[in-house]
Amino acid sequence: MGVRPIRAGIVVTGTEVLTGRVTDRNGPWLAERLRELGVDVGRTVVVGDRREDLATALRFQLADHDLVITSGGLGPTADDLTAEVVAQVQGRAMALDRDLADRIEEIVAGYAARRSWTTPPEILRQGSEKQAMVPDGAVVLTPIGTAPGLVVPAADGGAAVVVLPGPPSELQPMWAEAIASAPVRAVLDRASELRQAEIRIWGPPEAELAAALRVHEDAHGPLDEAGLEVTTCVRDGELEIVSRFAPEAAGAYGDLHASLSATFGEQIYADDGRSLDDVVAEVLLERGETVATAESCTAGLVAARLADRPGSSAYLLGGFVTYANEAKTAEVGVSTGLLEAHGAVSREVAEAMARGARERLGTTYGISTTGVAGPGGGTADKPVGLVHIAVAVTDGSVAHRELFVAGDRAAVRRRTVVAALHLLRATMAR
Amino acid sequence: MGVRPIRAGIVVTGTEVLTGRVTDRNGPWLAERLRELGVDVGRTVVVGDRREDLATALRFQLADHDLVITSGGLGPTADDLTAEVVAQVQGRAMALDRDLADRIEEIVAGYAARRSWTTPPEILRQGSEKQAMVPDGAVVLTPIGTAPGLVVPAADGGAAVVVLPGPPSELQPMWAEAIASAPVRAVLDRASELRQAEIRIWGPPEAELAAALRVHEDAHGPLDEAGLEVTTCVRDGELEIVSRFAPEAAGAYGDLHASLSATFGEQIYADDGRSLDDVVAEVLLERGETVATAESCTAGLVAARLADRPGSSAYLLGGFVTYANEAKTAEVGVSTGLLEAHGAVSREVAEAMARGARERLGTTYGISTTGVAGPGGGTADKPVGLVHIAVAVTDGSVAHRELFVAGDRAAVRRRTVVAALHLLRATMAR
Repeated sequence: MGVRPIRAGIVVTGTEVLTGRVTDRNGPWLAERLRELGVDVGRTVVVGDRREDLATALRFQLADHDLVITSGGLGPTADDLTAEVVAQVQGRAMALDRDLADRIEEIVAGYAARRSWTTPPEILRQGSEKQAMVPDGAVVLTPIGTAPGLVVPAADGGAAVVVLPGPPSELQPMWAEAIASAPVRAVLDRASELRQAEIRIWGPPEAELAAALRVHEDAHGPLDEAGLEVTTCVRDGELEIVSRFAPEAAGAYGDLHASLSATFGEQIYADDGRSLDDVVAEVLLERGETVATAESCTAGLVAARLADRPGSSAYLLGGFVTYANEAKTAEVGVSTGLLEAHGAVSREVAEAMARGARERLGTTYGISTTGVAGPGGGTADKPVGLVHIAVAVTDGSVAHRELFVAGDRAAVRRRTVVAALHLLRATMAR
Repeated sequence: MGVRPIRAGIVVTGTEVLTGRVTDRNGPWLAERLRELGVDVGRTVVVGDRREDLATALRFQLADHDLVITSGGLGPTADDLTAEVVAQVQGRAMALDRDLADRIEEIVAGYAARRSWTTPPEILRQGSEKQAMVPDGAVVLTPIGTAPGLVVPAADGGAAVVVLPGPPSELQPMWAEAIASAPVRAVLDRASELRQAEIRIWGPPEAELAAALRVHEDAHGPLDEAGLEVTTCVRDGELEIVSRFAPEAAGAYGDLHASLSATFGEQIYADDGRSLDDVVAEVLLERGETVATAESCTAGLVAARLADRPGSSAYLLGGFVTYANEAKTAEVGVSTGLLEAHGAVSREVAEAMARGARERLGTTYGISTTGVAGPGGGTADKPVGLVHIAVAVTDGSVAHRELFVAGDRAAVRRRTVVAALHLLRATMAR
């Protein structure tokens, strides 16, 4: 596609991220923000809190990128090394910024007072002074928590490094100031528009999508030659096709969209960037409809997901976690006779749960889940992975699905949540 | 310290991981398994589905590691490139393994039958044949789903690459066969024991931990010189200190443990690898006690977390998602008078919710959460981040905490879940 796109590399620091004690949310967030600015991100390096590994990762990313962003390692403890190692890699000396240290100390004193910490001020001051060491020639980004961010140009004229704190609640608000800084501005000014479009499908297997893409390429030629970078992913049963392209390739994307629409029709539930959650929330808000849940195997995950977004109290009134059979009876009125006759994991009980939840809270819809999440509890008749879901509606009707989910306990529960929300979506669309 | 430890590098592939549409669970899982085998992992590279970026990432990891593990990119679609690029980087030609293709085709046919797919067999066969292309000299790992894994030795005698599928439910069961393969065995035989110990603390700020570590180093000398690699992390208010060390440094770890115990005492809630969830579940199981929840701002997350582990039905009977005020009244009997007098986010309502949940289901404990998760809904009196949690007990007593949580909506909810479980833990320990 003509000119080389502007590329950025991300370095996520922290042994806790490398080993999974903390899930990285910064790499993906930064990759999306950079993409929106027309900057391409090809890789992220996650590195532990070791001086040498961090230096190697920075040099690797600096070698073939126009900009490098780091997250984490700016705290007060000695294993927080990022500022120091970035300074060294960029050929910059560090010095204490006295004003910055005073500002950080003031912030920490505020925290300490609100939370009644008994830590001696001298101890807190040492931490603040560590966090106020700034590489020569760097731009300081205003702290959101206690850690300032940095933009560190290379002494030798190479790519600049943007150093951001690890907590997403500090990193995200700092982003605007980072991209407004002169060294970052200079890079972004060279970027050109990079569009992204997503097609989301619920129903068919991945193999069918692979086939549809092959058929399209047979007719229209290879996607990459047409200027489309297409990636597909399967996530809890949902298929997602993401295309990235320069404005010139918009026509080729239109052709791809037409091919997939012809093949998958109504199985495409969004092609405008909206997620399943967006689609469900929009319909509920638009119609002023409400939801209640009754969950067994998912034990609150459906309700919690419905409450993920701000303003969800407009449609989520409440729910029931009916984990034990007694709870199914006490909370949503499933009769012991029905439980004995069909078992807790059955169409009949799923439907009774959905009806019960709806009636107890007087909502438009009642959503239920009951299944064998495993690893124990499976039988020949009702194996691990068998799930029943139902959606009850005010007119007395109940939609039902039976699922067989492959995977571990967590996978069964996640996939059940997604299937339940799709059943709600499909029921609303009737 | 002496001999250089065996090091492995991880490459996680997939644009969907790079951009956060799918959260990587493989990098952390592999890092922990390798650590248990005495293999050190210093960095993970996350790379999109592009031939060149993947090749660069593989070469970077191969350059200074004894073993490289990849996850993902083994599916039937054309953007699944891993096997092909690994073969190229390792200097190996690819050929169709006819037997393997037949085996995969049979697996796919089984899926298709169980799920009533209408995909033509020819289409499915093309996908199977793509997945059965094997680099010359590679060990094939038995498919768990449809994708086989591979162990690909380098033609030039360099480090081998272990190629594993992306879905954790396929990757994890394949691990045993991967490490039993001759090329991996040869590397692991050179590894020596690498211990890991975790100290988990609830209560004090990170600055206090930083200070305690400094005081310890003043008395005992630098941790790294004593052979301890110590990393600290703060996660939803919990402090975690992870130490890695060779057996020779066990004494130095004992000194560190003693220092932290002297400083933090009962604020240390686990020092034997157990998580908060482990501690709570063990006490409940041991005593045969039960729990019910009543959740407002967390909307099911506390119940769902209590149900995370197999066998949780022994202690989690059920719960209530009391999102709207009407639900607080209808589900757990919070009086409208109380709601009007104190507001939904108040000590009084949190206590009434906890009592109501416990009484409705006749459990030992009732746990409640109510708070302003934001971003809207805050007032001068009750700002975003204000949360009340409570735990009711059979003797009629109720423990209560008021929290002020910094961060966004998701952070407030996550932190509330952790605080609620700690309040349960502390209440049980009384």
